[in-house]
Amino acid sequence: MKLVTFGTRDNKHHIGVLKDNSSVIDIRMASNDLGIPLSFESIIHILEDPEGLEKVQRVIDAAGKHAGPWYRSLNDIKLTAPIPRPGKILGVALNYHDFCVRGKLDTPTALKVFMKAHSTVVGPNDAVHVPLERKVTYEGELGVVIGKTGKHVASADAWDHVAGYLIVNDFTANDYIKEDVQLMRGKNLDTFCPMGPFLVTKEEIADPGALAIKTEVNGIVRQNSNTSRLIFKIPEIIEYFSSFLTLEPGDVIATGTPAGTALQFDPPAFVQPGDVVAVTVEGLGTLTNIIRS
Amino acid sequence: MKLVTFGTRDNKHHIGVLKDNSSVIDIRMASNDLGIPLSFESIIHILEDPEGLEKVQRVIDAAGKHAGPWYRSLNDIKLTAPIPRPGKILGVALNYHDFCVRGKLDTPTALKVFMKAHSTVVGPNDAVHVPLERKVTYEGELGVVIGKTGKHVASADAWDHVAGYLIVNDFTANDYIKEDVQLMRGKNLDTFCPMGPFLVTKEEIADPGALAIKTEVNGIVRQNSNTSRLIFKIPEIIEYFSSFLTLEPGDVIATGTPAGTALQFDPPAFVQPGDVVAVTVEGLGTLTNIIRS
Repeated sequence: MKLVTFGTRDNKHHIGVLKDNSSVIDIRMASNDLGIPLSFESIIHILEDPEGLEKVQRVIDAAGKHAGPWYRSLNDIKLTAPIPRPGKILGVALNYHDFCVRGKLDTPTALKVFMKAHSTVVGPNDAVHVPLERKVTYEGELGVVIGKTGKHVASADAWDHVAGYLIVNDFTANDYIKEDVQLMRGKNLDTFCPMGPFLVTKEEIADPGALAIKTEVNGIVRQNSNTSRLIFKIPEIIEYFSSFLTLEPGDVIATGTPAGTALQFDPPAFVQPGDVVAVTVEGLGTLTNIIRS
Repeated sequence: MKLVTFGTRDNKHHIGVLKDNSSVIDIRMASNDLGIPLSFESIIHILEDPEGLEKVQRVIDAAGKHAGPWYRSLNDIKLTAPIPRPGKILGVALNYHDFCVRGKLDTPTALKVFMKAHSTVVGPNDAVHVPLERKVTYEGELGVVIGKTGKHVASADAWDHVAGYLIVNDFTANDYIKEDVQLMRGKNLDTFCPMGPFLVTKEEIADPGALAIKTEVNGIVRQNSNTSRLIFKIPEIIEYFSSFLTLEPGDVIATGTPAGTALQFDPPAFVQPGDVVAVTVEGLGTLTNIIRS
């Protein structure tokens, strides 16, 4: 199931399920019209209910059998980030073998982590605002969405806590990080965390540890790798974060970026106003954003 | 006005105003009973309304003229953090002159900042859970609560964006920070951000730059300073954060901690299960917490 959040002319957020490449089913409209009451107003609400995804699936199965007003053309709606305001956005730095090799960095022996505030989140096709004087890179990443509360989760149990996946573009101001050492400021400019286009529930992804991942800027391929090159894998990452904090439904973990960030080109390929940045992850679609000043 | 959030036996959060040292006025109950409708369900809701504090003041003025069921004894309620789930908790490290002098550190020329997740928040008298093997310090701090959305706020305009103040105890695992360099993990263990006991609105604090601040552990004074020793003052801090992210009503800024953290004693005064830690800031009351494993 591919879950989406979208806005319409009434300026409200709606939740839906992608039906095909051109339309979504509006979950609340379908549940109301079909008399299958659901109280979910956001994807986080769905994930907080242990049977939330099954309840949505029943509505979608019923809705798919009929013509109905709950079909919305993708042309008529604006997809937002699937989770516009995650409780936490957790990130892992230096987590791809190819990134370290190309950057002539030792393979890390411990996770290096950071947070992004919800004020960084934007959706597919939204503008990413880059101050003209800043040196900013795209960072295409596999995002893991938490589906079940967990503390001290053993890596062997980690998959139970995963709801699904989405693409994250972890925009980063490299000059701030060089200046600050701390990752906080460089990772937290407004609009620096595009996510989407949809949340793909985990049963659709046979092996999240073997997904092609690619970032293109104005059609030029800048990152081209595979999640098999992750140094710390998803279960280890979940074990790590949950060793000191509580993971909650709707939390997003950006798992790290492969080789080919702006600083790994000579001259550096920092983004510029007008650039179109597209991240594609196998099975998760393409997340496209435009750079604005 | 001293705003509080509290729980009662119905397990819901209520909002109130401290009437005296022994009671609060329940804002929603008073507004309902007095026929002055207010829709606020949290302190963040109050702050999001540009006239929210005035509306609450009118209810409290009316309620104070009568006996009524809206008075709640502090003995019958449990204060929580005034803002149990801030949108952002922003912190400043190394921001007191006395801390730097005692630690033989150069006075920083730039802010060093971090974030704490909402999962770190607890209230007055709540337990702070410290894993037995960790080296953890209290850090008593003046917390600034944002009252108005702002981006690129000049320091001269910063006070317009302040709603008020509260005490923050920015618990920190020093061993994690030593190991990680990044502040993220050491600042983000669950329960590591007690806040309260109330949010004091800014008109009650004549000069937030001249408040006595003290931290006691089991009655022994460990930190004893004054906010006049802040290196970067509140207006500069607000200008800094808002230069890259949007400050929003209910965001909390922990402004830094004075001399006397655990590592500044020989032997270090790391907290232990059973310790009672009390932070007092002039005009803001005392925030007391107990350490548990």
